[in-house]
Amino acid sequence: MPLWNIYHPVGTYTARQKLEFAAEVTEFYVQRGLPKFYVVTLFHEIPESSFLVGAEPSTTTVRIVIEHIARHAKDPAARKQTAEILNRLLAPHTLDRGLHCEFHIDETPRDLWMIDGLWPPPTGSEAEQLWVRENRPFPY
Amino acid sequence: MPLWNIYHPVGTYTARQKLEFAAEVTEFYVQRGLPKFYVVTLFHEIPESSFLVGAEPSTTTVRIVIEHIARHAKDPAARKQTAEILNRLLAPHTLDRGLHCEFHIDETPRDLWMIDGLWPPPTGSEAEQLWVRENRPFPY
Amino acid sequence: MPLWNIYHPVGTYTARQKLEFAAEVTEFYVQRGLPKFYVVTLFHEIPESSFLVGAEPSTTTVRIVIEHIARHAKDPAARKQTAEILNRLLAPHTLDRGLHCEFHIDETPRDLWMIDGLWPPPTGSEAEQLWVRENRPFPY
Repeated sequence: MPLWNIYHPVGTYTARQKLEFAAEVTEFYVQRGLPKFYVVTLFHEIPESSFLVGAEPSTTTVRIVIEHIARHAKDPAARKQTAEILNRLLAPHTLDRGLHCEFHIDETPRDLWMIDGLWPPPTGSEAEQLWVRENRPFPY
Repeated sequence: MPLWNIYHPVGTYTARQKLEFAAEVTEFYVQRGLPKFYVVTLFHEIPESSFLVGAEPSTTTVRIVIEHIARHAKDPAARKQTAEILNRLLAPHTLDRGLHCEFHIDETPRDLWMIDGLWPPPTGSEAEQLWVRENRPFPY
Repeated sequence: MPLWNIYHPVGTYTARQKLEFAAEVTEFYVQRGLPKFYVVTLFHEIPESSFLVGAEPSTTTVRIVIEHIARHAKDPAARKQTAEILNRLLAPHTLDRGLHCEFHIDETPRDLWMIDGLWPPPTGSEAEQLWVRENRPFPY
C-alpha cells in the first residue's frame, strides 16, 4: 500500500520524469508516517488506439488508479483534503504539461495485505516506526 | 468514472473494433446522464503465456474489470439489470465472436475522485448537465 | 473471480514458471470448491524504469493484486488464514527466489459479476458443483 497504477500515453514520461513523479508520490505518504517502500508506483504506456476517452483515442490523458490499504480516512473533510493534496501533487506532471488528468482512490481491506511474508505492523505502532526508519520489512 | 480495463488476447481487436467497442460502452453511460469524457476504456493485449484461465494459457478469453465511481446502484433489481445490459452490450464483441467473456464491476468511493483538478459535480446537478452538454470539465 | 494481476520485472518468469505459478493459485481455489476456470491469472512484465518502489526503480519486486468476488471471508480468523495460506503459496515463486513480494486482496460485489453471459451459480449450490465438475459455464 499504496499502489499507484498510472496509465499514460506512449512517451509521456522519461525514466527521469517517472523517478521524480514517484518521488513526490512517495514523499506524500512518508510525511503521513508510512515507510517509503510501501509506496509502489507502476507506469503503464498505453498506445493511442487502446486509450479511449469518451470513445475517442487519446494521447493527452493520464488516468491514475490509486489503492489505499494501510490508511483509510473516515472524516469527510480529511478525505476531501487527501484528494485535493494529491490533485496539487499531480498538476506539474499532468495539467501543467497540457495533459488531462483523472484519478480515483479505492480503499481495500488492511487485513488482507502482506509484504515479504509479514503482516505490516499496526498503524502508528512502534514496529511501524521501525519499518519507517529501516525502510524495509522485518519481523517485529 | 467509469473505468474499463479490458484484458484480451493479442490481435483480438483492430483499432476500428476498439473504437466501436468503446463507443457502445460510452453510449451506455451517456444514456444514464453521464458526460462522454467520463468513460475511459483501456485495452490491454496479454500474450498467451501470460493469460492463464484455470491454469491453462488462453487465447480465447476477454477479462473485463469495470470500476464505477459516479453512480452506485443500490436496489438489487437495478444492479442485476445493469449487469445484464452490459452483458448484452458485450456479446457482439466477445461471445458472438467465439470468445469467452468474464466481467465484474467494482464500486469505489465517489468522494475520492477528481478530473482535471476539479470535483465532478453532484449526481443529477445542473453543473453535471453542463459538463454533459460541453463534454469537458470546467469550474462550476 | 478470483482475478490475479501479477506485476513483475522483465524476464522473472518463463512460460513454464507462469504455468506452475498459476496451477498452484488455481489449486488453492479448487480446494475451496470453485471451478477451475473461475481462476484468471494475468502476468504483466514491467520495465525497471516503470516499476518504482519507494521511488526507486526495482527489478526485484513482485506486486500482486487479487480480486475476490465469489467468496468473501467474514470471520477475522478465516481472513487471516486465507492471506497466510496465499503467502506460503507465493514464497517459492518470490521470496525463495530472492524477490520481494507484496500482495493485497480486494473484495468486489458478487452481484455485479457474469461469465459467458451467465450468472455464476450461488455459493455451494448444486449448479456450482456441476460447473466445477464440467469446468465450464452452462445454463442451470
